Amino acid sequence: MNRILVTIPLTQEQRERLQATDSTAKIEYIMQNKLQAQDVADRDIIIGNIPIPFIANANALKWLQLNMSGYEGYPQAMPQGVPVTNTRGAFGLAISEHMLGMLLMLKKKLHLYRDNHNAATWHDEGNVTAVEGSVVLVVGLGNIGSDFARKVKALGAYTIGIKRDLSKKPEYIDELYNLDRIDELIPRCDCIALSVPNDESTYKLMNRERINMMKQGAVLLNVGRGAAVDTDALAHAVSEGRIMAGVDVTDPEPLPSDHLLWKQENAIVTPHISGFFHLPETLDRIVDIACDNLQRFNNGEILNNIVG
Amino acid sequence: MNRILVTIPLTQEQRERLQATDSTAKIEYIMQNKLQAQDVADRDIIIGNIPIPFIANANALKWLQLNMSGYEGYPQAMPQGVPVTNTRGAFGLAISEHMLGMLLMLKKKLHLYRDNHNAATWHDEGNVTAVEGSVVLVVGLGNIGSDFARKVKALGAYTIGIKRDLSKKPEYIDELYNLDRIDELIPRCDCIALSVPNDESTYKLMNRERINMMKQGAVLLNVGRGAAVDTDALAHAVSEGRIMAGVDVTDPEPLPSDHLLWKQENAIVTPHISGFFHLPETLDRIVDIACDNLQRFNNGEILNNIVG
Repeated sequence: MNRILVTIPLTQEQRERLQATDSTAKIEYIMQNKLQAQDVADRDIIIGNIPIPFIANANALKWLQLNMSGYEGYPQAMPQGVPVTNTRGAFGLAISEHMLGMLLMLKKKLHLYRDNHNAATWHDEGNVTAVEGSVVLVVGLGNIGSDFARKVKALGAYTIGIKRDLSKKPEYIDELYNLDRIDELIPRCDCIALSVPNDESTYKLMNRERINMMKQGAVLLNVGRGAAVDTDALAHAVSEGRIMAGVDVTDPEPLPSDHLLWKQENAIVTPHISGFFHLPETLDRIVDIACDNLQRFNNGEILNNIVG
Repeated sequence: MNRILVTIPLTQEQRERLQATDSTAKIEYIMQNKLQAQDVADRDIIIGNIPIPFIANANALKWLQLNMSGYEGYPQAMPQGVPVTNTRGAFGLAISEHMLGMLLMLKKKLHLYRDNHNAATWHDEGNVTAVEGSVVLVVGLGNIGSDFARKVKALGAYTIGIKRDLSKKPEYIDELYNLDRIDELIPRCDCIALSVPNDESTYKLMNRERINMMKQGAVLLNVGRGAAVDTDALAHAVSEGRIMAGVDVTDPEPLPSDHLLWKQENAIVTPHISGFFHLPETLDRIVDIACDNLQRFNNGEILNNIVG
């Protein structure tokens, strides 16, 4: 009989789904913010991003299913031979729609119309640009970047993708390159969308020099990793009216309240909220992954999404 | 030799395109806001929405090409036998992207995050909803409504369309009905998007009763005709937290600065700007239509988009 600890806020329906996948399991729910180190003891399986130091107390752990895509620090902390799996794929919908919303808001000047709305002002803000016919560079074609590229392609954009493996070009990507070609691609693009993992190759990927190579009026979107962009250089470029920015992640986080980026009319900073469980469908997808892996675990099969 | 008056702001490239279509024509450009009644005299062709009273001075007019889809009042004012044509199709892209922008902004709470941005506040606004998997009712499947339906369908929404002619169901519409079925459809929908012409059947189409039938949290979008919605009832429903609203048209226009709708956090009013020439592609499309009709006019063929 599996003793399972779950630390994410599942609905009643989702709890029933999990129990039905392993009818004899003893499943206990303790939310992340109430969790104590001793709660992880004597659990065969844990579903949720428990604090990394707690792993030392997980004396019976046979498998850890994270609730995020990011897994920094977990593999190193796990006992020998105990697998940790992530939820790759669960966040594509939520984050890619958030990205598209930021892009359209900036292109249609809805951020300015929002300000006018708050001032009860009927005022024409002039010309706008379209997604259709625009050139969009998507850096990182994981689940999130792929979903975003698919969406803008469906809206009539021309898509350029950057990823490591060039052997398979998805049908929604018009041109595909490696990261080493980025400098020549940047000036062609009306939108540059970053959804990259947290590793050495992505640190300050969009540095001051590259930000300055962007087309007049282009939009920089960033989700996933704040440090992929030089936040100061970004704020500066927006302040000079050269580009617009929609970012769900910043460096540092939270963005200090006196940071220049907050003061920019043509920027929107959202506080790292595009993922998490803010879209109910995301939690559904996490449960899908967890249930599928639970079945595999009980059948002695190899788990999906092993990250360490 | 055609004497042509143009009252819309064409680019140099667009002017050359028009001239190339009729190389011997004498084309004069006088912008709408500078136009005097006597300017329309001795013109064979006018391209632009001249003020209706000026038509009486158009003593040589053989054809009037409007620059808008709406043509209210023009057919009645035209001399016997002189055709008036509109620009049906030119505004689909601009307006449907604006609608999608308003929808995503409201669903992703970007209007609230914009307010937080202005206050330099890193604050989580909680749950959001998705376009994918939502049910969208599109009332009026002209060029604009069709373009919008195509976009949300491509993003994974389930689409219900309302139009007069049910004989041809477009592939991007999942269910198609006449207007008389609207009452049973409203409660099913997460978004109701109106893009309807200005006629008797659309006056206060979304009245208080129908607004009150909308699903909790649903979004009402309105473009094209302000009087299709009871603006007071809409403001009231939003103020009670029952629905959200994104409207580019209101009744009356401009919306008075003390109107309840301006005070609503979960509404965005844009000042009837989704169309016009705010998207450069729109003007291109108008020139396409005008050039095509000019060629037809010179060849003695029947014009496209005749509205009277």
